[in-house]
Amino acid sequence: MKNQLYEKLDVAFEEMQVIRRYLHMHPEVSFQETNTAKYIQDYYAQLGIDFTPNVGGNGVVARVKGALPGKTVALRADFDALPIQDEKDVEYKSTVAGVMHACGHDGHTATLLVLGKTLHEMREQLSGEYVLIHQHAEEYAPGGAKPMIEAGCLEGVDAIFGTHLWSLTPAGTIEYRVGPVMAAADRFEITIQGRGGHGASPHQTKDSIVIGAQLVTSLQQIVSRRVSPVESAVLSVGSFVAQNAFNVIADSAKLIGTVRTFNPEVRDLIEKEMDRVIQGTCLANDCTYEFLFERGYNAVVNHEAETQFLKEVAEQVPGINEVRESEQHMGGEDFAYYLEKVPGTFFFTGAQPKGEVFPHHHPKFDFDESAMLVAAKTLGAAVVDYQEVK
Amino acid sequence: MKNQLYEKLDVAFEEMQVIRRYLHMHPEVSFQETNTAKYIQDYYAQLGIDFTPNVGGNGVVARVKGALPGKTVALRADFDALPIQDEKDVEYKSTVAGVMHACGHDGHTATLLVLGKTLHEMREQLSGEYVLIHQHAEEYAPGGAKPMIEAGCLEGVDAIFGTHLWSLTPAGTIEYRVGPVMAAADRFEITIQGRGGHGASPHQTKDSIVIGAQLVTSLQQIVSRRVSPVESAVLSVGSFVAQNAFNVIADSAKLIGTVRTFNPEVRDLIEKEMDRVIQGTCLANDCTYEFLFERGYNAVVNHEAETQFLKEVAEQVPGINEVRESEQHMGGEDFAYYLEKVPGTFFFTGAQPKGEVFPHHHPKFDFDESAMLVAAKTLGAAVVDYQEVK
Amino acid sequence: MKNQLYEKLDVAFEEMQVIRRYLHMHPEVSFQETNTAKYIQDYYAQLGIDFTPNVGGNGVVARVKGALPGKTVALRADFDALPIQDEKDVEYKSTVAGVMHACGHDGHTATLLVLGKTLHEMREQLSGEYVLIHQHAEEYAPGGAKPMIEAGCLEGVDAIFGTHLWSLTPAGTIEYRVGPVMAAADRFEITIQGRGGHGASPHQTKDSIVIGAQLVTSLQQIVSRRVSPVESAVLSVGSFVAQNAFNVIADSAKLIGTVRTFNPEVRDLIEKEMDRVIQGTCLANDCTYEFLFERGYNAVVNHEAETQFLKEVAEQVPGINEVRESEQHMGGEDFAYYLEKVPGTFFFTGAQPKGEVFPHHHPKFDFDESAMLVAAKTLGAAVVDYQEVK
Amino acid sequence: MKNQLYEKLDVAFEEMQVIRRYLHMHPEVSFQETNTAKYIQDYYAQLGIDFTPNVGGNGVVARVKGALPGKTVALRADFDALPIQDEKDVEYKSTVAGVMHACGHDGHTATLLVLGKTLHEMREQLSGEYVLIHQHAEEYAPGGAKPMIEAGCLEGVDAIFGTHLWSLTPAGTIEYRVGPVMAAADRFEITIQGRGGHGASPHQTKDSIVIGAQLVTSLQQIVSRRVSPVESAVLSVGSFVAQNAFNVIADSAKLIGTVRTFNPEVRDLIEKEMDRVIQGTCLANDCTYEFLFERGYNAVVNHEAETQFLKEVAEQVPGINEVRESEQHMGGEDFAYYLEKVPGTFFFTGAQPKGEVFPHHHPKFDFDESAMLVAAKTLGAAVVDYQEVK
Repeated sequence: MKNQLYEKLDVAFEEMQVIRRYLHMHPEVSFQETNTAKYIQDYYAQLGIDFTPNVGGNGVVARVKGALPGKTVALRADFDALPIQDEKDVEYKSTVAGVMHACGHDGHTATLLVLGKTLHEMREQLSGEYVLIHQHAEEYAPGGAKPMIEAGCLEGVDAIFGTHLWSLTPAGTIEYRVGPVMAAADRFEITIQGRGGHGASPHQTKDSIVIGAQLVTSLQQIVSRRVSPVESAVLSVGSFVAQNAFNVIADSAKLIGTVRTFNPEVRDLIEKEMDRVIQGTCLANDCTYEFLFERGYNAVVNHEAETQFLKEVAEQVPGINEVRESEQHMGGEDFAYYLEKVPGTFFFTGAQPKGEVFPHHHPKFDFDESAMLVAAKTLGAAVVDYQEVK
Repeated sequence: MKNQLYEKLDVAFEEMQVIRRYLHMHPEVSFQETNTAKYIQDYYAQLGIDFTPNVGGNGVVARVKGALPGKTVALRADFDALPIQDEKDVEYKSTVAGVMHACGHDGHTATLLVLGKTLHEMREQLSGEYVLIHQHAEEYAPGGAKPMIEAGCLEGVDAIFGTHLWSLTPAGTIEYRVGPVMAAADRFEITIQGRGGHGASPHQTKDSIVIGAQLVTSLQQIVSRRVSPVESAVLSVGSFVAQNAFNVIADSAKLIGTVRTFNPEVRDLIEKEMDRVIQGTCLANDCTYEFLFERGYNAVVNHEAETQFLKEVAEQVPGINEVRESEQHMGGEDFAYYLEKVPGTFFFTGAQPKGEVFPHHHPKFDFDESAMLVAAKTLGAAVVDYQEVK
Repeated sequence: MKNQLYEKLDVAFEEMQVIRRYLHMHPEVSFQETNTAKYIQDYYAQLGIDFTPNVGGNGVVARVKGALPGKTVALRADFDALPIQDEKDVEYKSTVAGVMHACGHDGHTATLLVLGKTLHEMREQLSGEYVLIHQHAEEYAPGGAKPMIEAGCLEGVDAIFGTHLWSLTPAGTIEYRVGPVMAAADRFEITIQGRGGHGASPHQTKDSIVIGAQLVTSLQQIVSRRVSPVESAVLSVGSFVAQNAFNVIADSAKLIGTVRTFNPEVRDLIEKEMDRVIQGTCLANDCTYEFLFERGYNAVVNHEAETQFLKEVAEQVPGINEVRESEQHMGGEDFAYYLEKVPGTFFFTGAQPKGEVFPHHHPKFDFDESAMLVAAKTLGAAVVDYQEVK
Repeated sequence: MKNQLYEKLDVAFEEMQVIRRYLHMHPEVSFQETNTAKYIQDYYAQLGIDFTPNVGGNGVVARVKGALPGKTVALRADFDALPIQDEKDVEYKSTVAGVMHACGHDGHTATLLVLGKTLHEMREQLSGEYVLIHQHAEEYAPGGAKPMIEAGCLEGVDAIFGTHLWSLTPAGTIEYRVGPVMAAADRFEITIQGRGGHGASPHQTKDSIVIGAQLVTSLQQIVSRRVSPVESAVLSVGSFVAQNAFNVIADSAKLIGTVRTFNPEVRDLIEKEMDRVIQGTCLANDCTYEFLFERGYNAVVNHEAETQFLKEVAEQVPGINEVRESEQHMGGEDFAYYLEKVPGTFFFTGAQPKGEVFPHHHPKFDFDESAMLVAAKTLGAAVVDYQEVK
């Protein structure tokens, strides 16, 4: 039966590509992905697959019922894009200025849609039920997972699986890891309120750009000096905006960024240290500030049994060359919340493209589309095999 | 005759206020100030005063001829606004989002329009000719002065006078200075090209914001360490923009700013040192950059005879409490170019408002409107008296 | 027999204190610890214990032979002090200005001397041979371990054990760890060669202190930005010296520090990045530099069997409340080299003092002397029990 | 008579060289220059010139009385050296490790000794009295001038002249300036008290070197951002010392430096801003500090009449090619205090050496010895001609 699944997916690979490229050309940022949601709904509607729209926002949940009784297993794919300008030179380049699928969620969606269709076609032979969770807004806290769970997407679900296509891992490789695999991901905003004025009269102003520059530099030292070297932590300022005429001194500057940690004590420490560094820097410069620290997703903690199960499944999937332990990733994922409710695992599917490789969220990010096929087969095999667990 | 001029201006002060407030509510940034130009043209057209539109761009030049022969004396007022959001809480607040008369050019324009009208009304008693230069684009190099001069606005002109309302000098005070009074004003743009990526994976990126922050800090040291302490110099980064999602590491960052100097050798030194600091910082961070240094206005150098003349005139104007030597200002002014062609002087008219005082280019900048009357009387007295010089 | 050992050590504890305090009052820095070596030699000579002086430098190796045949087991204690001014207010405070036992090696030495004496007293009942390695120069690469090994101190040795008294772990606790437990410890020296001059004429100089300050700040960013967050690394500048009259600008500045890593690739990366950061910073400031990166001790990698053995031994030692897994430590230890030659393990003996606790190498560092007794019992039990292994 | 003076000085030039080189080889730092004082006393004693030793410290005051009545005119030369290591490669290199005549005071002393001898030889023809003030401790506040004045060295003095040999001005040039010519020179000391520890455990420490580096960088911004660009100011950290083993984190760091200003308001502003910057930086880093700001010498303000007189005298001295206005110098000089008591002027004598030129206080500083002859002639002519003034 799994062989039939694999064959059907091989045939449907071209469709995955078409869907992925269409989505790639029409990206929508988090919480605004209504056309993408419509696209997903239309796809299932056309096939006569049962689905619920607007689950906890733009989320779509389809359900495929096997003819035989069995477990209910969920699969999740996220479908939002990022506010990044696509700088690739390809035919399927984003058509939306400043918005881009720079993390591969287009691929996740194409994979799950075609896998869903395939499971639907094979439903007469299948046991159990398959919950296809198309989640909006993974890129931006508070994320789509929480409201979708609150809206009931995990009802009756026995286990959940999800994957991330990964451009830095060779195609043909699956990476699993027991325990914490992705970090807690927090967001902060700092507004420096100096005193604007003419660029030629610094002594009558408080230069918010000079103050902000000091702050960026000092914040880096929290990781290098305040956090124990045997703990993992990241503090990145992703956005620094003080936009003015060239001959003005900036009245204010806004810094936005992220903090990543695995250990909750380190998470607390960094928030506290940031507060002190900002306070001291602003005292030194006689200015005021606002500091907002928004706790984002918790760490993704994979369940041991399901991870071990997934590893063994993957080792049998045709086309997979290597199944290996994943490193810990500092990236956040609201897949964390599914795993706080039901057993499951989140793994990585190698998708390294030919030619130059760019990291996720890079303006030239791309991935090897054949990875979608590998992902579909692994997820498909997992949900089918899971019926036989225990 | 000057008394009649003063009396007429006293009466017309209310009109100045009305005009100034209208302009304040309808600001236009440099080189886009077409409605303001139209406003000026309509004003003169209505009074039957001869004018030329579109002089060197949006500039307007009106000419009032006295009945008697005499010298040709020019007066100049600039009329562009700044890309700053008005944060004042007044009735005449800017109605245009992100644009504001934050330097007082609305007041300059109102002053010159009403003074022009008054001279026109008194033309039968006057000798010589009065050239009313309404200049666009003073705030943004290459400025409006150069093209207006090239278009002939100084033809036949024997001398020129101009003033700046000054919010940091008490109303009722006139400030003059022989020699260099305003600085050479250059503009630079630096683009740091790092390598973008996910905010959680700094080691796969080159963080343009961290690099930019270093650069801002290092550039400050050019003034404090590389320039002789007995020379004057300013280097201000006015704009720092690397706008991204919070969980992205910035692919690039753009810094825009200004350099001010009096001594041409220091001007050269700073450009050279900036280049080296940028180059070294980018080498240290393994990234690339673009560096553009645009020479802006030259220094404003007042002529000795005309400055001395203006000082003596001002001492006789009713309502002026103090006539004193001005400090050197680091601000730039394309009035410099008029003074490279004809004799003249550029002086400051105190306009410090009641209550809290904000420097020019501040989002809450305002000035004491009575200063317009003082400016009109001083400029009016100057052009009338100049007929008798020599 | 172990009970007798424990009882003898209980009685001899007072002697350990006397020895430790004498050594504490007479510290000697690495490679200059001749009086301490003499003290050790005299101690053994007086007891009629066989020893070899000047092993690989100031090292002393004593050997106690049991009456019965058995394995040869080594114990190691280091005896050098640090160039730190003792700031404690205790009777046994260092009498040598600027030199201090700020890491507990005085305690290690007292422990091993008294344990050696006790084993000597019990030699008739003991199997095997006990090699007491008193190592000089642990604090300063290239260290004493290497030359002592080259001089033969491990000849015939079947296994080796060593411990570090640890002021941050509660007394009564033993900490073990399989695999890498202490980091590779490298040393660097950076000399910035600017251009000195008068403090009032910065523009005629290249200010080595300002350049050095930039460098310290930029070097911190290697850990926070260039190293993967899931790797451990430390870069600390421990010494910054540019000593001049107040009115001079520093001609040069010297920075000395350490880099700690577990992963050899990260070790290479940091050296390479340091080189680039220094080069770029000096280019930006038009100065020259020298950069020396001296590879220090390799990581201490504990053997699995001996570590497990030690853990089980410790669990039986009276007075030990807790035996737990140790964290990885970023500190270096040339115990690494013994473990590259023979099986063994290096563990931590909790020695947290009452009252305020200071980290190792702090001017107020001290430890709970009762920990010496715990260490002596654990080491003693280990070497005795090791006779029965396998 | 002046020609005779010039001829005698020409002949005595070789002696100046001998004296200067002897002093250069035997430098003594401020307040410890007892051997140099002894040398001066011996010189005068041998010639039978009347002198007073130990004037206000190590100062020596000799008096040469002309046979005819006249004015009493003082000349001043300072004789202390600096704590700088001589790095020149010359025969007369300093023989004292870490001490060097890096500012030319050896030349000042040689000049005045030989000029004093010459005046003494010519005393039968001379009017008035010549006070030869050999001042100790010019380099280090509170300086020698104040106590020498308090001890009476200016008693009866009608005017005073002094010069500084200047390595950056061509030999054969004299530079004068009316009004403020040298800056107020203050001294500061900042001690950062962090928390020391092991170099591998930054999170248990407060890294005083990292904090000090931030502070050095932030202090630079006081001059570039807080002081008006049309004012002159310098803030230099001349000494940064945190000397430790490479594997230690610094418990404290000491920064010593100087502030130079002409305007007393700017002097106050900088002290206040420093205090805030230090306070904020230490708050950001959770450490404590001590900040000492010691007001040093006031600005040297030359008297108009005496400066004009000196200029005219210099224009007649053979061997002088150019007499020109001096720039303002940011260096301090306790000659300031003489000029607060009696009329006079302080001028610069060009002494630029052949080959590479190093600024004053540089380890390779040297000067063209022929400048001593020019200085002697100018000072000699001044005191002789001053008898005829008014």
